Amino acid sequence: MMSNIQENGYNDTYLFDPEVFLRIDESKFKSDYKNDVTPLKPGVNLQIRPLRLGDFDKGFLDLLKELTVVGDVSQEQFITQFNKMKACSDTYYITVIEDTSKSQIIGTATLVMEKKFIHQATARARIEDVVVGNDYRGLQLGKVLVDLLVCLSQVLGCYKVSLECKEHNVKFYAMFGFEKSPEQNFMQIRFFD
Amino acid sequence: MMSNIQENGYNDTYLFDPEVFLRIDESKFKSDYKNDVTPLKPGVNLQIRPLRLGDFDKGFLDLLKELTVVGDVSQEQFITQFNKMKACSDTYYITVIEDTSKSQIIGTATLVMEKKFIHQATARARIEDVVVGNDYRGLQLGKVLVDLLVCLSQVLGCYKVSLECKEHNVKFYAMFGFEKSPEQNFMQIRFFD
Repeated sequence: MMSNIQENGYNDTYLFDPEVFLRIDESKFKSDYKNDVTPLKPGVNLQIRPLRLGDFDKGFLDLLKELTVVGDVSQEQFITQFNKMKACSDTYYITVIEDTSKSQIIGTATLVMEKKFIHQATARARIEDVVVGNDYRGLQLGKVLVDLLVCLSQVLGCYKVSLECKEHNVKFYAMFGFEKSPEQNFMQIRFFD
Repeated sequence: MMSNIQENGYNDTYLFDPEVFLRIDESKFKSDYKNDVTPLKPGVNLQIRPLRLGDFDKGFLDLLKELTVVGDVSQEQFITQFNKMKACSDTYYITVIEDTSKSQIIGTATLVMEKKFIHQATARARIEDVVVGNDYRGLQLGKVLVDLLVCLSQVLGCYKVSLECKEHNVKFYAMFGFEKSPEQNFMQIRFFD
């Protein structure tokens, strides 16, 4: 199966159209950056782009394991889920940073859109599953990912973007304009890990 | 356009397969009910079921206006958004309660599923946009909607279900097993209403 995929260039299939990033006005980026980093050019040998099918082989799931439980997800399961996400129009914007010198995914964040009837039948966005690999901390890559996805959510016409975060990250997210709703509680039931 | 839709029975199109409710084990309902109410039989002349295309004419959007800003959503926009939601597999479970004696939608809640690569490439569910019409308060219908959707999220294989709520609703949601994560903050940026 693997070899067939590679021969067909199937590996290069994007989860979403990379051109949506070009619709972002760079002057809208919210954060300050040092060392010529910008969300669209995060550094030497670092490429930011939509998730691709081939990222299974570039350590995408291993990176997610630095964030939470992933479990044993086979390549077939990965492909199935990728294709289901891709079939949902205007919904899954999983973005990755690849260190092209190592063919390795070293950062990722997800923008997911929920279609609504409220708010003029537009959509709400959420930022989920933000992680930068341990060896790549301190390079402003978390800022790069969040800044890009906040701007993308606005470009895509969402009426709001939200996220859940631990107390020690509140200041980080405030940088982009996120505000705590003092009266809004986050509640959950967990069925399994 | 309207008449065509009605002639074709298009109005009766469900957003999701009503049979998924039959997969719920009724003994799993979390709340206590008076007066023989259960989530699947919420009362005389009250029918709980998936949203249908025809619910535009049964006051579905007017009901949502009791919750938040809806704006001016035309029937054509409603149909377009409905069809986009329906095209996203295993994602939108908008459930309504109709008072069949008045052909009126008097309650609704949404279960929306987000496909994940984490947690064994399963999905996370959220409960959103819960509203019971002003004239139908005190009939346990909020409990009915939430109980049904929590059970549905588990049946559908989600690893967790979450929601955001105001402080005065924390006790209500605790009834179903929802817990506040003391360290988890909810943050948002609003672009428009």
